[in-house]
Amino acid sequence: MNTAKQRIEQLRVRMKQEGIDYYIVPTADFHHSEYVNDYFKVREFLSGFTGSNGTLVISADEAGLWTDGRYFVQAERELEGSDIVLYRMGEENVPKIEEYLGKNVKEGQTIGFDGRVVSASFGKEIAKAVKDKNVKLVYDTDMVDALWQERPKLPAGKLWIVPEALCGETVSQKLAKVREKMAEEKAEHLLISKLDDIMWLYNIRGNDIDCNPVALSYAFISMDEAVLFVQKKAVTEEVAAYLKKNGIVCKDYDEIVPFIQQYTLKGKIWCAVTDINYLLYQLAAERGELVEKANPTELLKAVKNLVELENIRKYYLLDSVVLTKFLFWVKEHIGKEPLDEYGLAVKLDAMRSEIEGFLDISFDTISAYGANAAMMHYEATQTQSAQLKPEGLYLVDSGGQYLGATTDVTRTIALGSISDEIKKHFSKTVCGMLRLAETKFLSGCTGRNLDIMARQPLWECYMDYKCGTGHGIGYILNVHEGPHSVRCQYNAKITETELAAGMIVSDEPGVYIKGSHGIRIENILEIVNEVKNSDGQFMGFRHLTYVPIDLDVIDTRYMEPSDIKKLNNYHALVYQKLEPYFEGAEKEKLREATRAVG
Amino acid sequence: MNTAKQRIEQLRVRMKQEGIDYYIVPTADFHHSEYVNDYFKVREFLSGFTGSNGTLVISADEAGLWTDGRYFVQAERELEGSDIVLYRMGEENVPKIEEYLGKNVKEGQTIGFDGRVVSASFGKEIAKAVKDKNVKLVYDTDMVDALWQERPKLPAGKLWIVPEALCGETVSQKLAKVREKMAEEKAEHLLISKLDDIMWLYNIRGNDIDCNPVALSYAFISMDEAVLFVQKKAVTEEVAAYLKKNGIVCKDYDEIVPFIQQYTLKGKIWCAVTDINYLLYQLAAERGELVEKANPTELLKAVKNLVELENIRKYYLLDSVVLTKFLFWVKEHIGKEPLDEYGLAVKLDAMRSEIEGFLDISFDTISAYGANAAMMHYEATQTQSAQLKPEGLYLVDSGGQYLGATTDVTRTIALGSISDEIKKHFSKTVCGMLRLAETKFLSGCTGRNLDIMARQPLWECYMDYKCGTGHGIGYILNVHEGPHSVRCQYNAKITETELAAGMIVSDEPGVYIKGSHGIRIENILEIVNEVKNSDGQFMGFRHLTYVPIDLDVIDTRYMEPSDIKKLNNYHALVYQKLEPYFEGAEKEKLREATRAVG
Repeated sequence: MNTAKQRIEQLRVRMKQEGIDYYIVPTADFHHSEYVNDYFKVREFLSGFTGSNGTLVISADEAGLWTDGRYFVQAERELEGSDIVLYRMGEENVPKIEEYLGKNVKEGQTIGFDGRVVSASFGKEIAKAVKDKNVKLVYDTDMVDALWQERPKLPAGKLWIVPEALCGETVSQKLAKVREKMAEEKAEHLLISKLDDIMWLYNIRGNDIDCNPVALSYAFISMDEAVLFVQKKAVTEEVAAYLKKNGIVCKDYDEIVPFIQQYTLKGKIWCAVTDINYLLYQLAAERGELVEKANPTELLKAVKNLVELENIRKYYLLDSVVLTKFLFWVKEHIGKEPLDEYGLAVKLDAMRSEIEGFLDISFDTISAYGANAAMMHYEATQTQSAQLKPEGLYLVDSGGQYLGATTDVTRTIALGSISDEIKKHFSKTVCGMLRLAETKFLSGCTGRNLDIMARQPLWECYMDYKCGTGHGIGYILNVHEGPHSVRCQYNAKITETELAAGMIVSDEPGVYIKGSHGIRIENILEIVNEVKNSDGQFMGFRHLTYVPIDLDVIDTRYMEPSDIKKLNNYHALVYQKLEPYFEGAEKEKLREATRAVG
Repeated sequence: MNTAKQRIEQLRVRMKQEGIDYYIVPTADFHHSEYVNDYFKVREFLSGFTGSNGTLVISADEAGLWTDGRYFVQAERELEGSDIVLYRMGEENVPKIEEYLGKNVKEGQTIGFDGRVVSASFGKEIAKAVKDKNVKLVYDTDMVDALWQERPKLPAGKLWIVPEALCGETVSQKLAKVREKMAEEKAEHLLISKLDDIMWLYNIRGNDIDCNPVALSYAFISMDEAVLFVQKKAVTEEVAAYLKKNGIVCKDYDEIVPFIQQYTLKGKIWCAVTDINYLLYQLAAERGELVEKANPTELLKAVKNLVELENIRKYYLLDSVVLTKFLFWVKEHIGKEPLDEYGLAVKLDAMRSEIEGFLDISFDTISAYGANAAMMHYEATQTQSAQLKPEGLYLVDSGGQYLGATTDVTRTIALGSISDEIKKHFSKTVCGMLRLAETKFLSGCTGRNLDIMARQPLWECYMDYKCGTGHGIGYILNVHEGPHSVRCQYNAKITETELAAGMIVSDEPGVYIKGSHGIRIENILEIVNEVKNSDGQFMGFRHLTYVPIDLDVIDTRYMEPSDIKKLNNYHALVYQKLEPYFEGAEKEKLREATRAVG
C-alpha cells in the first residue's frame, strides 16, 4: 500500500477517536518560516509531497493538497498513487482552503489543527469560513506526533554573534528605530515571532533551519525592555555575555506562553498577524488590545545599510566568479565525461565553499537538466539524479551564505544543440530580465508597478510563468525576505511595500514547459536613487550579479534592437567586473562569453 | 478687496455666530458626482478657484485649498490675492485634510459641513481624525446658502428614455444581475446614490449636469421592488408611463430621507460608502446593518455589451473623422487668419454637432495654446482666450455625447517650428501611448500593472505626468467612469478592479512644463480577450480612436525601432479607417499625415 495512503488512514483512525472531522496540516514551524526544519515536516511525512509550500486537508472522505504554481508538476508526480487530490492554487475554479471548508464542513462538525503551526491570519480565515455553522475549532493538538515514530528532534543549534564590523548598526540603534515605530502605532509592546527579524534585531544568528542561519526564538520588546526567548542549550557563554552586555534578557523558548499570559501589560501589544501563530495570537488577544500590522523590523531589515551593501556587492561578485567558472567547466566537460545533476550540485557547492567567508549554501541547489528544469523547485538527490547529455538546457539556481551576504542566482545554459523554439523562449526571458533591470521608476512604486517589464516579452508570445518575478533577500539571513517583492497578482488583503533605495531584489523571469524544458535567468538587483527633480525622486537598479548569459541560446531575431543593446551593455559590465579573476584560456573564454552580439 | 477674501470673511462672521471653528467645503453635489451643477459650486463661489477638484477648509486663522496635480498651476493663478493657502495633494510633506484637521483642531472645538455634499467615506475620515478630541460635528448645515444671494436654482431637466435598440439590455435584465450580486452579499436592499449608475440601471438619462446626461436622483432596490427618487417636474408623461411599464416606482427626490427613516427593512442595506453622502449614510446606518462595498451597478455598467460596443466603435470613428478634419483646418489656417483658443473650441464643438445623433459635448472642450496647455484642465473663455501664433504646440482635448457613445480624445499639434526638446517630449509621449495600447496582459491584471507601459519612456528621461494614465468612459453617460483605471499610485484603501473584455479605457500620457508647453496624446481603447491557453486568458487592446498623430512633432531619433513600427502600424490603420470619409485634396492630406516614417 502507498505510504501516504497508509499514514492518512492511521490519522483518520485517530481523528475518529478524537471526534475531529477535518484535520489541517500546513507546512510551517511555530514561526511561519518559509523553510522548516525536518521536525516540522508533518505534511511531507503524511503526503510524500516534498515541495516547500503545501497544505493538506484530511477528512473521512477526502485528502486534498493545496500548493502553488511552482509545484504543480512536482506535486502531480509525488502524489501519484496516494489518492490525494491536488488543488492547484490560483487556477480558475480552484477553491481556496477556507472556501473548501466553508462549502464542505457540516453544521456542528469539528476542525482540528496544531495552533502552533497555523498562522494567526489563516486560523482566522478558517474560523470565519465556518462561523455560521456552529463548528468547533480544536487547535491545541498535534495529532500526527504519536503516529510519527521516527520524528526528528526539535533542533537547537548554537547561537552565534554577527561580528560588529559586519553589522553597520548596533542592537541599541536598531531597538531605538523599532521603538520609534512602536510609538507611532501607540504600541507599548512588540511580540516578534519571525525568526529572521529577531536575528537581525539582536545581531545574532542561529542554526536551526537548513540554509537559514536562524534560531527558534521569540522576541518581546517594550519601551524599556528587550527579551529573547530561545532554547537554553543554544546559548553559549559568549552569547550569554553578549546578550547581557546589550541589555537583552534571555528566557527559555518554552516560557513564551506563560510569559504572554502573565506579563504586566502597559498598553497595546503589536504582533504581526501574518507571522505569529494562531495559538499565541489567541493568547495575546485575550490579554488586551493588539496592533496587527507587519513587524516594524521587516522594513528596517529590508533596507540594507551602507556596510551591508558594501559587503553584499563584494560577495555577489565573488559568487558570480565561482558560478561563471562552474558554468564554463560544465560546458567544457559535457559529452566528455559523465555528468549528472546531483554531482554538479555537489561540485558547485564545493566551489562556492572555497570563497573566504563561506558559511553554507543559502538554499538547496537546484541543478536541473532538460524537462526537470520545468519544475521550478526541483531538487536532484544522490539516488534520483538525471544524467546530462550534450543537448538541451541545464538550469542551475543556487546561492551561498557568507560572512557578508546571502546570494541567489540562476543561469540556464545550452549543453549542445538547441531548438529554435527554445532559443525564442530563452531570448524572451533574457529580454524580460534585462528590461526590468533597466527600468526607471518613481518613488512610491511597488513591485506590482514594475512586474510587467519582465513579463511583457513573454506575454507578447502568450506565455507566462506562474510565480512572482522577484523577492527580497536577507543579509546573512533568509534567501527569501519581505516585505517588498515584484509580482503581478492583485490581492487587496496584502499591503504592498514601496521599493526603496538600499533594498535588494531578485529579477527572475522564466519559461517552464512541462515535460520539455525550463528556463530561468535570475539576477539580483540593488535599488538606487537616481535623479530627484520637481516630478519626484526617480529610482533605478544596479546589477549585483555578474554572470554571462549563454549566447549559445540567444537568437537576436527574437529581441528588439534596444534589448540587444541592453544585453551587450550587461556583458561588457560582466567582463569588466570578472576579468580580474580570470587568467589565460579562461579569460579568453570570458571574453568570448561576453562578446557583443548584433 | 479680493472677492474670495471678502466672502470668506463673511463666512467667518457666520461661523463665529454658530460656534463653528472649522468649516469644510468640498466640490460635490449630493451624489458625489465628478462634475457638479452651478447650484453646487460653493467652493468656487467662496475661493474663485474653478478647477473640478478642490476642498476648502476655513478656520478663523486660515483658509486652505486642497487640490490635485492637474490643477496646481491653475489654482496658483486663480487663488492669487485671496490669502488662501494652496495644499498640493500628493506632494511630499503636504498633509491630507484629515491630517490637517487632526493636527490643528483643538479639544472641544466644532467642525461644520453640509452632510449632503460630503461623502460618507470622507465624513468618516474627518470623524476619525478628531475622535480623541471631544470634537462636535455639525453636518446638517449649509452655511454658505445665506451668503450666496444670486445662487443658481437646483436644476430639474427633463428625463428621457434611451431607445431600446441602443440599450442592449432591458431594465429587468439589469435588475436581475444586480439582485444576483445583492444575494451574493446577503443584502436585501440597495441604495444607489451615483447618478450614472441609476441612469444606466433604468435605461434613462437626464439633464441636470453640464455634459453629463444624468438627473438628480436616488434608486432603492429590494428583491421585489425598484424605486426611483427624482424631482417630479423632471418626469414627463412618457417617462412616467415608461417607469410604470418597467415596474419602477417613482417618488419625489426629497422623499429619500423620510423613506430611509421609515422603510420596513427586511435585511441589510447595501450602500457604497465612497458614493453616498454622509447624511444618508448616517441615516441608513441608524436603521441597520450595511454592506459598504461599491455599487454592483458600477462594474456591470463598465463592461459594455455588444450593442453598446458596436455603437461605440461607430461613433468613435465618426468623431475621429471630425477631429482629424478640424486639425487639418487649424494647420491650414494658422498664420493666415486670426485664430484663438475659444474660437477654435466653438468651431470644433460646432463641427461635432453635425454628426447625426449628436446630443452635447461630453465635457468642456480644452483648447489650449502654448503654455496654457501645461494646465491639464485649462478652459479658454470668450473673454480670456489666447491668440494662436504659427509656432509652438496647440492641444485640444474634447468629446461628444451621441445617441450611441460618449467620446473623449486629445491631440497636440504643431502650429509652426518646434524646438528639439519639445519634439523629444512629444515623441516620448507618443511612445508611451502606443506601448500601452499594444500591451498584452493576463486576465487578473488591474490598471496598476499596466500603467508603467505608458510612463516608462518619460520616466527614462526623468519626467512624469501628475495624473493617471487612463479612465473608463460611460455609454451616453459620464466621460469619466469607474471602477477601472490605469494609474500607478498605490493606495491600500482603494480596491483595484481587474480589467475585463468589453471595458473601454483612455490612454493619455503627457508632458506638462509650467510656463512653456503641454503635450497630451489620448486614444480610447477597447479591452479584448485574445488567446486563452494553459497559462491563462491573455488580453489586449483595440484602438477606438483613429486620428493622425502629428508627424511634424515626431523625431524618430527619440524612438526605438519598435516604437516607430507601432506608430506606422497605427497610422496605416488610421488611413484605412478614415479614408472613406475623405476626398480629393483632403484625402491627400490624410495620406501625408499618416505616412510611414523611418
